[in-house]
Amino acid sequence: MVLHIIGLGLGDEKDVTIKGYEAIKKSSKIYLEAYTSLLGGSTSIEALEKFYEKKIIIADREMVESGCEEMLKESVDSDVSFLVVGDPFGATTHTDLVIRAKELSIPVKVIHNASIMNAIGCCGLQLYSYGQTISMVFFTETNKPDSWYDRVKINRTNGMHTLCLLDIKVKEQSIENMCRGRLIYEPPRFMTVNQCIEQLLEIEEIRAEKVYDQDTFCIGLSRVGQDDQQIVSGTMKELLDVDFGAPLHSFIICGDMHFIEKEYFETFRIKKN
Amino acid sequence: MVLHIIGLGLGDEKDVTIKGYEAIKKSSKIYLEAYTSLLGGSTSIEALEKFYEKKIIIADREMVESGCEEMLKESVDSDVSFLVVGDPFGATTHTDLVIRAKELSIPVKVIHNASIMNAIGCCGLQLYSYGQTISMVFFTETNKPDSWYDRVKINRTNGMHTLCLLDIKVKEQSIENMCRGRLIYEPPRFMTVNQCIEQLLEIEEIRAEKVYDQDTFCIGLSRVGQDDQQIVSGTMKELLDVDFGAPLHSFIICGDMHFIEKEYFETFRIKKN
Repeated sequence: MVLHIIGLGLGDEKDVTIKGYEAIKKSSKIYLEAYTSLLGGSTSIEALEKFYEKKIIIADREMVESGCEEMLKESVDSDVSFLVVGDPFGATTHTDLVIRAKELSIPVKVIHNASIMNAIGCCGLQLYSYGQTISMVFFTETNKPDSWYDRVKINRTNGMHTLCLLDIKVKEQSIENMCRGRLIYEPPRFMTVNQCIEQLLEIEEIRAEKVYDQDTFCIGLSRVGQDDQQIVSGTMKELLDVDFGAPLHSFIICGDMHFIEKEYFETFRIKKN
Repeated sequence: MVLHIIGLGLGDEKDVTIKGYEAIKKSSKIYLEAYTSLLGGSTSIEALEKFYEKKIIIADREMVESGCEEMLKESVDSDVSFLVVGDPFGATTHTDLVIRAKELSIPVKVIHNASIMNAIGCCGLQLYSYGQTISMVFFTETNKPDSWYDRVKINRTNGMHTLCLLDIKVKEQSIENMCRGRLIYEPPRFMTVNQCIEQLLEIEEIRAEKVYDQDTFCIGLSRVGQDDQQIVSGTMKELLDVDFGAPLHSFIICGDMHFIEKEYFETFRIKKN
């Protein structure tokens, strides 16, 4: 039959497309990819189940990385839906799954939806004026990866905007629990705009290549695509203390702004005391 | 009331989200932005009207650029939907419309959807490995704009992929008709992958900065997000003669490919004679 890979978009259960909804309704099994992102705001798996009138199986990292054997097996004889928050080929691609399905001659249908990679356009900076997107991971005392600094440098040197995707830690184990083989997971953690700015400034201080500083214009966003989405623009210093509320947060380091971009930027400008 | 700005996605009438559909159903007027893109494949305005059970008003370039006065006026007293193919903040942003609505204290709700800017992920190249997107316009005998060449150079130098958005000419007047003030429009024209490659190679020959050549890896795509979507990978030379069929076409100049990207690239590889 068919393996449907369906984007859920960024909001609640009603952000699925009608095509996606119809595919879910006719599927015998529904899986939800739930480790690289999370459902929008207050949307729960129960809310999805109620809306679809279907049971949802959580596909966690172990399952997806071990090749989704079970899901692919099911897809041979019946329609199966694999749900992905955002777009199936957004920040994470699922090409490995598509390749495996193709090898087993299972037809794959992809149903696209909004992802943070295009919905970020809501802040008014033109999507075609962005350079490479970077991923900002949580620093630890001993590990402060900064390979993204070079990308930001290329972007800034060439006047391009930089979208920063902020770290999500879901189903992570503590080192102690991991060593002892205990499947106990830490509570989910989501990087805030403030933490992202702190880490950016920390690395600028170390690398000191003057790629940006605390007066660089930037935009903080939270819950993009949801009803209570928040967008605040200002300098890094100004945004350091802004409370962006519940996850997910996103961050943009502005490049050169066209005057129309600048005009829109000002509409989100943080109120100065 | 509310001005709903609704992305229709890239496919047919069923690619609208449930949230978008519900907003349309409760709107007193429905406008469709129809000059920067076109409805997917065989989808007609009549098909949309039948599906929504609503009359659709075409918003052409004149109307949108003159500020959508009428539409904004309507929005003061009743819900109005402004439909956009793809995402409202995709390749074209509608920030001017949002600013005008805000000035008139009209609440705006944006309903996101897939746009070519994220659905392009279907070819397997990671979205965060793209540099700036370029727009390729139709060359004429006397006008061959090539400012995009510098952007491609930056992208290629830094190993990044380049998405090329190909020109669409809808409701264009011939110079003769324009001079004579006759509102007669030429048939719509859409740039093919082949024309894009020709123009790319033509400019490389003139600029000769060795940014790419006929052996550079690239990917041609057509009708992304539709049932008959086509993806073919190969060198520029190989793709020069491939028939990608009906519009819209898109094109990617590959940067450095990760081995997973390369593996997926090969699954779309043109069959060699």
